[in-house]
Amino acid sequence: MGCCTTEEDSGDSALEAKAQSIDGAGAMATRNWGRWGEHDEKGAANLINPDTVKAGAALVRTGRVFSLAMPLDAKHVPVTPGRFPPQHFMRTDGGDYAAGLKRRDGFQTTDDVISMPVHAGTHIDALCHVGDGDYLFNGYPLSSVRSSGAKKLGMEKLPSLCSRGVMLDLCALHGVKKLAKGTVITPEDLEACEARQHIRVTPGTVLLLHTGWLGALPTLGIAEFFSGEPGIGMAAAGWVADRGVPAVGVDNFAVEVIPTENAGSAPVHRMLIRGCGVYLMEMMVLDELAEAGVHEFLFVAAPLPITGATGSPINPLAIA
Amino acid sequence: MGCCTTEEDSGDSALEAKAQSIDGAGAMATRNWGRWGEHDEKGAANLINPDTVKAGAALVRTGRVFSLAMPLDAKHVPVTPGRFPPQHFMRTDGGDYAAGLKRRDGFQTTDDVISMPVHAGTHIDALCHVGDGDYLFNGYPLSSVRSSGAKKLGMEKLPSLCSRGVMLDLCALHGVKKLAKGTVITPEDLEACEARQHIRVTPGTVLLLHTGWLGALPTLGIAEFFSGEPGIGMAAAGWVADRGVPAVGVDNFAVEVIPTENAGSAPVHRMLIRGCGVYLMEMMVLDELAEAGVHEFLFVAAPLPITGATGSPINPLAIA
Amino acid sequence: MGCCTTEEDSGDSALEAKAQSIDGAGAMATRNWGRWGEHDEKGAANLINPDTVKAGAALVRTGRVFSLAMPLDAKHVPVTPGRFPPQHFMRTDGGDYAAGLKRRDGFQTTDDVISMPVHAGTHIDALCHVGDGDYLFNGYPLSSVRSSGAKKLGMEKLPSLCSRGVMLDLCALHGVKKLAKGTVITPEDLEACEARQHIRVTPGTVLLLHTGWLGALPTLGIAEFFSGEPGIGMAAAGWVADRGVPAVGVDNFAVEVIPTENAGSAPVHRMLIRGCGVYLMEMMVLDELAEAGVHEFLFVAAPLPITGATGSPINPLAIA
Amino acid sequence: MGCCTTEEDSGDSALEAKAQSIDGAGAMATRNWGRWGEHDEKGAANLINPDTVKAGAALVRTGRVFSLAMPLDAKHVPVTPGRFPPQHFMRTDGGDYAAGLKRRDGFQTTDDVISMPVHAGTHIDALCHVGDGDYLFNGYPLSSVRSSGAKKLGMEKLPSLCSRGVMLDLCALHGVKKLAKGTVITPEDLEACEARQHIRVTPGTVLLLHTGWLGALPTLGIAEFFSGEPGIGMAAAGWVADRGVPAVGVDNFAVEVIPTENAGSAPVHRMLIRGCGVYLMEMMVLDELAEAGVHEFLFVAAPLPITGATGSPINPLAIA
Repeated sequence: MGCCTTEEDSGDSALEAKAQSIDGAGAMATRNWGRWGEHDEKGAANLINPDTVKAGAALVRTGRVFSLAMPLDAKHVPVTPGRFPPQHFMRTDGGDYAAGLKRRDGFQTTDDVISMPVHAGTHIDALCHVGDGDYLFNGYPLSSVRSSGAKKLGMEKLPSLCSRGVMLDLCALHGVKKLAKGTVITPEDLEACEARQHIRVTPGTVLLLHTGWLGALPTLGIAEFFSGEPGIGMAAAGWVADRGVPAVGVDNFAVEVIPTENAGSAPVHRMLIRGCGVYLMEMMVLDELAEAGVHEFLFVAAPLPITGATGSPINPLAIA
Repeated sequence: MGCCTTEEDSGDSALEAKAQSIDGAGAMATRNWGRWGEHDEKGAANLINPDTVKAGAALVRTGRVFSLAMPLDAKHVPVTPGRFPPQHFMRTDGGDYAAGLKRRDGFQTTDDVISMPVHAGTHIDALCHVGDGDYLFNGYPLSSVRSSGAKKLGMEKLPSLCSRGVMLDLCALHGVKKLAKGTVITPEDLEACEARQHIRVTPGTVLLLHTGWLGALPTLGIAEFFSGEPGIGMAAAGWVADRGVPAVGVDNFAVEVIPTENAGSAPVHRMLIRGCGVYLMEMMVLDELAEAGVHEFLFVAAPLPITGATGSPINPLAIA
Repeated sequence: MGCCTTEEDSGDSALEAKAQSIDGAGAMATRNWGRWGEHDEKGAANLINPDTVKAGAALVRTGRVFSLAMPLDAKHVPVTPGRFPPQHFMRTDGGDYAAGLKRRDGFQTTDDVISMPVHAGTHIDALCHVGDGDYLFNGYPLSSVRSSGAKKLGMEKLPSLCSRGVMLDLCALHGVKKLAKGTVITPEDLEACEARQHIRVTPGTVLLLHTGWLGALPTLGIAEFFSGEPGIGMAAAGWVADRGVPAVGVDNFAVEVIPTENAGSAPVHRMLIRGCGVYLMEMMVLDELAEAGVHEFLFVAAPLPITGATGSPINPLAIA
Repeated sequence: MGCCTTEEDSGDSALEAKAQSIDGAGAMATRNWGRWGEHDEKGAANLINPDTVKAGAALVRTGRVFSLAMPLDAKHVPVTPGRFPPQHFMRTDGGDYAAGLKRRDGFQTTDDVISMPVHAGTHIDALCHVGDGDYLFNGYPLSSVRSSGAKKLGMEKLPSLCSRGVMLDLCALHGVKKLAKGTVITPEDLEACEARQHIRVTPGTVLLLHTGWLGALPTLGIAEFFSGEPGIGMAAAGWVADRGVPAVGVDNFAVEVIPTENAGSAPVHRMLIRGCGVYLMEMMVLDELAEAGVHEFLFVAAPLPITGATGSPINPLAIA
């Protein structure tokens, strides 16, 4: 039985009823709250265990390491209106010494500062990032996320994301360089990829999906890039949860297809993050991995333990 | 022949002569510039290769993953005067919804921003972080680091730091909870650890040193913590370079012993980073690893690819 | 009849009753809500009118201009724990050109960024800065202040603070260089200053009080400076409101005496800002003005119109 | 004799010769270095004196105060590529209390942070903002502006800008709502305004010029707004300096006409700021002042004393 049908296991039926009624018509009520205990804050990362880590390590055959992050700077990171691109400021630099800054004992050091939205560039969403009906994943109240940060489900609750990783290549499946905007990735697509790639997404497997969308950014331009995207639909989201995927990463900006299937706001975010505790990773750079034909690997992402953050920039690695 | 004695291989003898003359009396002239080509910007990370990665992966026996980072927030991260602690700002939070913020279609999202010095908390120094006599590692001019960031040797030039890792436990060697301030770690100490732990630091091995200094921060207080520290001396730095270590990480704030042996400024930083292209990782959390008695592992650190940065916060992992 | 006794004029008696009941035992219920209309967001700044501006301008006799602000930088601005000092970052500087930055057509420009708490250094509090019992000044709900800023009573609602200004010199009155920590400034003190200085605080007059506390910062040290301060007590706060003062500025960090008279939290802030719409200005530099013996002037402060801000750094001027 | 012809008075003829040679073909060599002493850092603000302040105060006839600043927020402030709009972050807000934040003793406070380029929104340029041939105004080396800020000519060197102010209405002169992009404002235009408005720009008078460009921003859109602008040409810049104007403010983004007359970079900035020490104020809101037909006033701008800054956001006031 998949994680998505375990609602009846929830200990807090009053809470359930309340949330259920609020979830209402549009939003799917799919969730697995209580699956890992009522105090759990790690969600589907609980599906990672020593065996899945070892299974990942066993996939390191060539010793090749792929960095799946995009450059972090104001020039390269596209941001939606309201967010600002990463700002990088030097506090001491070589120019200062060229201009006459005294060197203590010959020693010259350079120093700098980074300021950025945590959801800019290649990043992971923490489980506190999405709420619905006043509740976060596992029934934690949305009101636990305040100006001082998230008291529950903050980024620091996920010390690492290290497990077997699989990349399903939708572009290769369809023989295209990039999926078209609005393309809904379905469970059938995912299983066709599995078949084509002779691979299977097992519980604890971090799943990466290659759509080609981010790689097309230079061609698309920022406005078109953010106007929509190919991504997973609700059925595929259910498939992801049912397969026991702790985290899914895509080379687009929101994992899910846009426009959404129900024209509502972020239904896949709601089902996966808030409903099932599955982590989403966005703006991943997957073209090199796809070109190399690397489909299985040890996946490693190590979010910065920013206390109470709703996400973190990451530099995910595929070690093959 | 160790990396420290390869100066004669440098193709640019005029540059050598110039740098040599500038290095002058106090600073050690130890360096290996040109070892990986005159255009190299990765330094000792070149000592990592598919074999060392595979050797690391082969050490994953229990599937246990250790996160070696400290929490990133203003309360936990001690900073030296002039730097500010990590600042975390919410752009949207649960309080806003509690106060009446309209939910589009029921959807509620939270969002935030991080602003911090890249050398705060657990972090890695990029090779552009240290200069001497107007030169950075490999003879790149310090003047290539400007307000717009480092044109050479910036953080983005190290896509990952993934290899076999070894932790030498100086505390266990000396039977103490923490080394005393000012304790100089010597080659003899390191070799005694090797013998005691039945382990060897081989080329390409990321080296972690457990001193207990960071773990003592709550007891020491910030002023005492930054007033000095146990750390490696010049001889140990030479040993590190000679052994082919690409990166060394310590649970203190500067890797090297303070006060320094020659009373000069950061001689170990100068020898290792600027002279030999060895990466330093500071403020690492090693107590749990030491307590678990885990001495060999797959080491993974993935710096954020902040273009032109002099370092990056990291969440290093030891996967055993 | 003073502003503090006009509660009965409030149109919204249900609101009154509610707020009254919440104000409870400790907090004084003093307030003048509704005095300037139920939609008013300027508070006691309504007491400034063309006549008080002209009266201020008529005081410009010598043409001397006093800047009453402290330097804004990390070194000079003391901050309480949790706040960070002003951070100033260069985006382009002379060092860059010295290091070789290309000059377009010979032109060289420098550029920078400021990041700071609005309540750091010399600053003014907006009326949305203080709430009690879920209400802000004039009965606006505290919940109107969210992550996106204050919808009501934000800094931008006060376009300027320009009127006749008077400085009462408590130090001169008592013949001391600074008042002692915890000294309660009373109405009797203020009236004794008036008598001694042959001056009167009339409606619309911006009132500055010289205590010597900020001037003593270098001697006191930051910890002692923030451990308490001389300042106005509740009776003097009532006097300030009754006299029709739109804004009161003091050379201390909180205007009011600390420890507070009732051992409660910020009773003067609550009475003046939230109860009566009176603006507070803190960390003002008044020593030079006091030394010059300038007691009457055109006072000008122009807050930055930061939309929804709870305050603004200011450089207040006394033009005499 | 105007300020622009005093080069021969410079004490440092070698410096003169050097700068002269560097100024070269394109850039005009106009400058008045040394006019206020070789150590001067206030430039044309020296033309303000008690008499011009008193003359300004005497113009306060109606007691009306005009704020000439635009709202400071990400939505309202247009920025050129590379700069980011003002970012405003709440550290504590009403939402937090609505979500359950404990109130100490009933007291509720809100708190926030501003982060912004100093040249965003309505602002003033400090004299260190512009260099040419390695020199700033008065012969100070550009290399004195480093990552730690400007050692010379920083914003804090101008404690206030308070004097008689005059607004010349170019729109009214030409009977248009806004001058067309690229319109060069000439001395003849300025003198025609003087004649039409029965007013004279005398030494020490802060000069405001109404072009209508900023008011047209909503119609123009950001791209067109920044693509060029009406503004003063080189002849008018010379006129401004010759008339003894300490500061000139315009409702456009660069004071000077764009495209520039000589197709070079910022010739007016170079002549006025770097050559003659005249302060420029940009993005001023002048439409209301123009509509009210207010042409003479006490002008007050009080830059934030950000140590070493190249400018400051301001909320300039015209008090009439």
